[in-house]
Amino acid sequence: MLENESNIEKEIKMIPEPTLRRFPQYIHLLKRLRKESTQYISSTTIADELELDSIQVRKDLAITGVVGKPKLGFDIDELISALSNILNWDNSTDAFLVGAGSLGSALLGYKNFNQYGLNIVAAFDNDPNKIGKTISGIEVLPLEKFGNMVERMKVHIGIITAPPEAAQKIAEVMVQSGIQAIWNFSSIHLKVPFNIIVEDALLTQSLGVLTHTLSEKLKKEIAVLEKQ
Amino acid sequence: MLENESNIEKEIKMIPEPTLRRFPQYIHLLKRLRKESTQYISSTTIADELELDSIQVRKDLAITGVVGKPKLGFDIDELISALSNILNWDNSTDAFLVGAGSLGSALLGYKNFNQYGLNIVAAFDNDPNKIGKTISGIEVLPLEKFGNMVERMKVHIGIITAPPEAAQKIAEVMVQSGIQAIWNFSSIHLKVPFNIIVEDALLTQSLGVLTHTLSEKLKKEIAVLEKQ
Repeated sequence: MLENESNIEKEIKMIPEPTLRRFPQYIHLLKRLRKESTQYISSTTIADELELDSIQVRKDLAITGVVGKPKLGFDIDELISALSNILNWDNSTDAFLVGAGSLGSALLGYKNFNQYGLNIVAAFDNDPNKIGKTISGIEVLPLEKFGNMVERMKVHIGIITAPPEAAQKIAEVMVQSGIQAIWNFSSIHLKVPFNIIVEDALLTQSLGVLTHTLSEKLKKEIAVLEKQ
Repeated sequence: MLENESNIEKEIKMIPEPTLRRFPQYIHLLKRLRKESTQYISSTTIADELELDSIQVRKDLAITGVVGKPKLGFDIDELISALSNILNWDNSTDAFLVGAGSLGSALLGYKNFNQYGLNIVAAFDNDPNKIGKTISGIEVLPLEKFGNMVERMKVHIGIITAPPEAAQKIAEVMVQSGIQAIWNFSSIHLKVPFNIIVEDALLTQSLGVLTHTLSEKLKKEIAVLEKQ
């Protein structure tokens, strides 16, 4: 069986994470161009539009298996469908959300996740003031029901939008319930078994880079003015 | 003047971006431990808690200038305040948000940004159905007023939560109005002058990694079962 597993491992080519993170950018660009009735595109044009290295883009697109036509370039529809397939955005995956506060409500109200293959089908909280409320058409259920519901609905993705102090405990409930992948908005580092996928949304990390870089920029400008 | 500028450039030590992205994680952990009445911490403990390399953590903390006490370690309050200072989270920075749809409303309702030094003080849209509405205490203003308001209130940060097709145009309005840093939630690549800071929130990129990794994991498990 071990041998089997390693064969299968080889069959599924691993896509490097930086490449994977560029795929949504390609999809967004290609969809926009398709709306403008463009039918074919070259990897150089994609690189120009996204200010990326064109060799990088060519390598990334090679992973999709889509072959460009001489002089015309890639068929945009073909590329969109191949990229969406790799990201599994052509399938809708059900997810449960835990933490129906302001961020949780926000995500429940954000209808565009459907476009990216994510379908939030239930929300949970342990605050009696939130349980029973309906947010964007989804009723907030008590956290005790989480395990049962995961089993019954065969849900694989859990989204954590709870405050930092509750997040680790919720992650443990999720793992025990059979959740395989966690999208973590809690801004703390979750400790889970190695075979559980955790993807951090990194909102505060992104904000930290922004506020720091801006403050350095302003400091520098002030310093330049003062020395003049 | 050029000489002055390069001197100033040298005075302000550049912090590597990966380090900068770990700082919020440190702050979250330290605040949690402080609540639990812990007063001192070693870099090894921080590394263990966050599953990071301890040499990395030691290097990161050295940037703060905070010196640990022998046998005790770092004073947690001192570390929190030094890290917050570097991220400029000890100051409140005003920001304007453009795009009062579901994601925009979400961010307006997310009160925790204040903790991270971000204060969203006004929201804009060009949809007559949204203009005049009040979301989480903030009135939605017509986009035409953006430029004037930026000048009057000396705001430096613009947040784009508009749909992809509107985002580039909004970025241009922001740049013309004097915005210096853009937090981009639109999931498209923005083209702006080199001196404007753009930080992408990368929500869909993060989701793409999650949905792809999960689908590969499930495929592999199915393949293993089938070969048994």
